[in-house]
Amino acid sequence: MADDTSARAFAPGHVTAFFSPCEGSDSQRIGSTGAGLTLTDGVTATVEPADRTTIHLNSERARLQAVEYVLNDLSVTARVALETPLPVGAGFGVSGAAALSTAFATNLLFDLNRTENELITTAHSADVRAGTGLGDVVAAARGGIPIRIRPGAPEYGELDGIPANAEIEYTTFGSLSTSTVLESDSQRLSAAGERALRQVRRRPTVETLFAAGRRFARTTGLLSTPVADLIAAVEEAGGQAMMAMLGHTVVALGEGLSRVDHEARKCHIGEGGVTLRTE
Amino acid sequence: MADDTSARAFAPGHVTAFFSPCEGSDSQRIGSTGAGLTLTDGVTATVEPADRTTIHLNSERARLQAVEYVLNDLSVTARVALETPLPVGAGFGVSGAAALSTAFATNLLFDLNRTENELITTAHSADVRAGTGLGDVVAAARGGIPIRIRPGAPEYGELDGIPANAEIEYTTFGSLSTSTVLESDSQRLSAAGERALRQVRRRPTVETLFAAGRRFARTTGLLSTPVADLIAAVEEAGGQAMMAMLGHTVVALGEGLSRVDHEARKCHIGEGGVTLRTE
Repeated sequence: MADDTSARAFAPGHVTAFFSPCEGSDSQRIGSTGAGLTLTDGVTATVEPADRTTIHLNSERARLQAVEYVLNDLSVTARVALETPLPVGAGFGVSGAAALSTAFATNLLFDLNRTENELITTAHSADVRAGTGLGDVVAAARGGIPIRIRPGAPEYGELDGIPANAEIEYTTFGSLSTSTVLESDSQRLSAAGERALRQVRRRPTVETLFAAGRRFARTTGLLSTPVADLIAAVEEAGGQAMMAMLGHTVVALGEGLSRVDHEARKCHIGEGGVTLRTE
Repeated sequence: MADDTSARAFAPGHVTAFFSPCEGSDSQRIGSTGAGLTLTDGVTATVEPADRTTIHLNSERARLQAVEYVLNDLSVTARVALETPLPVGAGFGVSGAAALSTAFATNLLFDLNRTENELITTAHSADVRAGTGLGDVVAAARGGIPIRIRPGAPEYGELDGIPANAEIEYTTFGSLSTSTVLESDSQRLSAAGERALRQVRRRPTVETLFAAGRRFARTTGLLSTPVADLIAAVEEAGGQAMMAMLGHTVVALGEGLSRVDHEARKCHIGEGGVTLRTE
């Protein structure tokens, strides 16, 4: 189904509303509980055989450790071209989506005969080891609005979802380092994340997700000034907005951002999770 | 996100290649292991409030017990209009897809605040109790090419998938009763289903799925003459085909049926599982 010269796969972006990090020593069991939105904006990976591995992101040479780990773990070298409209390092799970789409395209191109769960596990483990994500890969693999009930790769983790779909707008003021935040105050993060998770499981709606996300950002002290101001403006105009974990990024429901005259990119909540692109 | 007067959801059809029935007394734990293909052809349910429940299938009044059970379990009455291009009772999981799409649309319309897993559980249990399916609902909820490793609703079951996509053609010679087959020789079915499952998990490709499906149909004695002849013709022409469990139905990869001049409907392997239709 791939021609012999390249294969392509897509993985949605994933905006975390809140999370509790779960540490450990096994990268397949490490992860996070929490919830977020997958997006129709994501990462498309095109993989071609090559004698040594190179990675390009939107046509520029890039280092993405999670993608390198995936290729190493699958024992291949390849030229990987990643295309995405999403900002990098701003809370959209680009690293996880890149690892996941690369794993699926690589499996197809090289006839590696892995199952979906095996490829998700490879990408999850790579994202965890690279320090770039704890739950983005399993969320992006599912699509929709994933609730991460138990952390880790498919063998260990457990997912549910909020059955909803909606238009989404987003804008970003810059990046926030995942590893710096995780080192800061993981007990406070965990407690706030667990409370938010209970709230969303009691009433699994998009509105609850946004409310729980806003409260998480406030109580963990992660909310930066421009983000807080813009969320307040959207709320005053009757909209729903929250901060993306982890980035100086605002995500709004419907036309929440353009209604307050803020320039924003539009997309939808993702539907299908990771998919091969065979056209 | 629904207007107040109706809500709509889509669930893909599901063609079982092989299965092992798993009996029990709890409809959430009952199910089957096995594997199959979900299809871009499926069932769209439009649900409207009504004082008493009515169900229409392609505009004709119909009795679908699984759909009635879903509405009962969700404690609502409604007018349900189901649309599908799939033949009914011919191995496409129409009953399960109808139950699943109805559950998602009903949850949206009546603001029932269930999670995705809760709605999948409701639809699975309804399909099992109606005697119309053992694994179609959990497969249709996932999309793609689901491998059902452990049976039952999300809390009990375990799924994996074959990471592939392809064009599919299908044609049907008529229906085959699920309950009659299940009563016939469940030990032989189970043994053949387990062998096929091992085969597909060892080499998770579409080609293996079709080969395992053909062998299952032969060894269980379920293969009827017109189905066997057509599968043989497709194979002689270099194609891949198998029988749908349970229906006198042939499913072929790519243009396998039109290449042997057999009239067939075209679709693709399903991608996104069950989804709300909010346009």
